[in-house]
Formats: sequence, C-alpha cells, structure tokens
Amino acid sequence: MKDCLFCQMASGSRQALTVHEDDATIVFLDHRPLFPGHCLVAPRAHFETLPDLPSDLVAPLFTTAQLVARAVEEGMQAQGTFVAINNKVSQSVPHLHIHVVPRNKKDGLRGFFWPRQPYEDDAAAKRAQEAIAAAVRRLRA
Amino acid sequence: MKDCLFCQMASGSRQALTVHEDDATIVFLDHRPLFPGHCLVAPRAHFETLPDLPSDLVAPLFTTAQLVARAVEEGMQAQGTFVAINNKVSQSVPHLHIHVVPRNKKDGLRGFFWPRQPYEDDAAAKRAQEAIAAAVRRLRA
Repeated sequence: MKDCLFCQMASGSRQALTVHEDDATIVFLDHRPLFPGHCLVAPRAHFETLPDLPSDLVAPLFTTAQLVARAVEEGMQAQGTFVAINNKVSQSVPHLHIHVVPRNKKDGLRGFFWPRQPYEDDAAAKRAQEAIAAAVRRLRA
Repeated sequence: MKDCLFCQMASGSRQALTVHEDDATIVFLDHRPLFPGHCLVAPRAHFETLPDLPSDLVAPLFTTAQLVARAVEEGMQAQGTFVAINNKVSQSVPHLHIHVVPRNKKDGLRGFFWPRQPYEDDAAAKRAQEAIAAAVRRLRA
C-alpha cells in the first residue's frame, strides 16, 4: 500500500528506528512513546486489524511480539510490559500493529484503571456471554 | 496451581461465564468489564506472563484471541476492539490473560490517550533503539 506509513517503513522507503525485522514482521520505536522504548510490532504485509490477519501469520507475528516483550523488559530494565492492539477504534495507523510498552510500578500509566464496573445484574452478564459464545460458534462453523 | 483463580476456572472447580474453551485455552467474561462483553483469553496451563509462555503455545493462544476479537465485535455489535496484556505491572491475576474489549467511537475509553510525548532528542531515541535491538540479539542468540 503506497500511502501506508508502515508499508513504507517495511519496504525501506521511509526511515524507522528499527529494533528488529524478519521475513514476516518489522519492529520499530513509536516516535511518540508512552515511555522511552515503546515499540510497535507489525506484519510486513498490509492487514488492517487483528481479525484481518491470515491465520498463518498469527504465530510469526506473536512470536515476535513475545520476543519484543522480553527485549523491552530487558533492554529498558523495566519491571513489566504492556502489550496492546487497537482494532479500528483508537487505531491511529490502519496497518495492524502491536504496542509493546515498558512498565514500572508507579509510572503514572493508568493502564487498566479506567472506570470498570460490575454487570448490572446476572442477566446482563448472561446476555453478553451468550452473544459472544454464539458468535464464536458461527465463526468456527 | 491450586490457589490460582484462572487455574480453578480452567479445571472447572470455580464457575466462570465461559464463552469458549479448547485444549489449550479458556475464554470467559471479566466480571468487572470495561464494557459489557469484555473477555479474558487465558492458556489453560499456568504461565504468569507473555514472556513465560512456551513457544508452542503462542499460536494456539493468539489464534483463539483472534477468534475472540472477531466474536466480540460481531456478538456485541461493536465498531472495534481493544486487545491487551499487562505483564507484571497492573496485572491483577498472575496467570497470563489477554483482555478483549468491545470498542465504539466516543465510548469514553481513553485507550491510548494517555500523555504521550516525543523523545527528548534524537540521541534519546537512539539509546532506546540500541538497548532493545541489543536485547533482541541476545535473546535470539
């Protein structure tokens, strides 16, 4: 995709602060990191979201993401990592990418401290459960 | 692990709002969702973090995560999803789990709207790049 930022990085026509690349994936620094060392892991080929990724690319992409999670922790001497994908909503570049962010206690990243609340009642939880379980069955059929 | 909440769910000794299970993974609703339909995808066997996951379990776990991302979007009629892992920091249960959360525009989830800022200067970015690239090389050696 000529106009895609990450495709340009994958092909070498746009500069990137690369930390790793292989046949299936590229890994580079986010230029506006949550914290220094914030990496993006992307498939070389253009797919917009995780649901769009062909099944034979799941293992290569996430094996690299695992490697990068280890490397970010070790290289940045972090206590942990945050690994995340935005599919469509909040997705800045429409080319699938996995954020790998170094984390430390009291680093100010609120992460999962967004407002969370229990289901209204058991029936509401049951409805969500059944809607998703039914979709899983359809998708696997 | 007898005392692990998710191991108890995997073995069936603790109830869960399950939406899918197979040989390698279990998927159930988070009881305090960011939004209704917020699922957790976990390996059946006990591993604490993504870096700890044996390489032969990467494909089964993330193939299920991909399936669940599709199913959450479809089942909850969402515009997108947020897929995330907290490794150690902000990790509530020390058994690897992937959050899959339905997302919609203007849903109030700030996601990646945490304070982000560019690197101080090119040298700072270069230092992070080299530290992580070196760690990748060590880990692959």
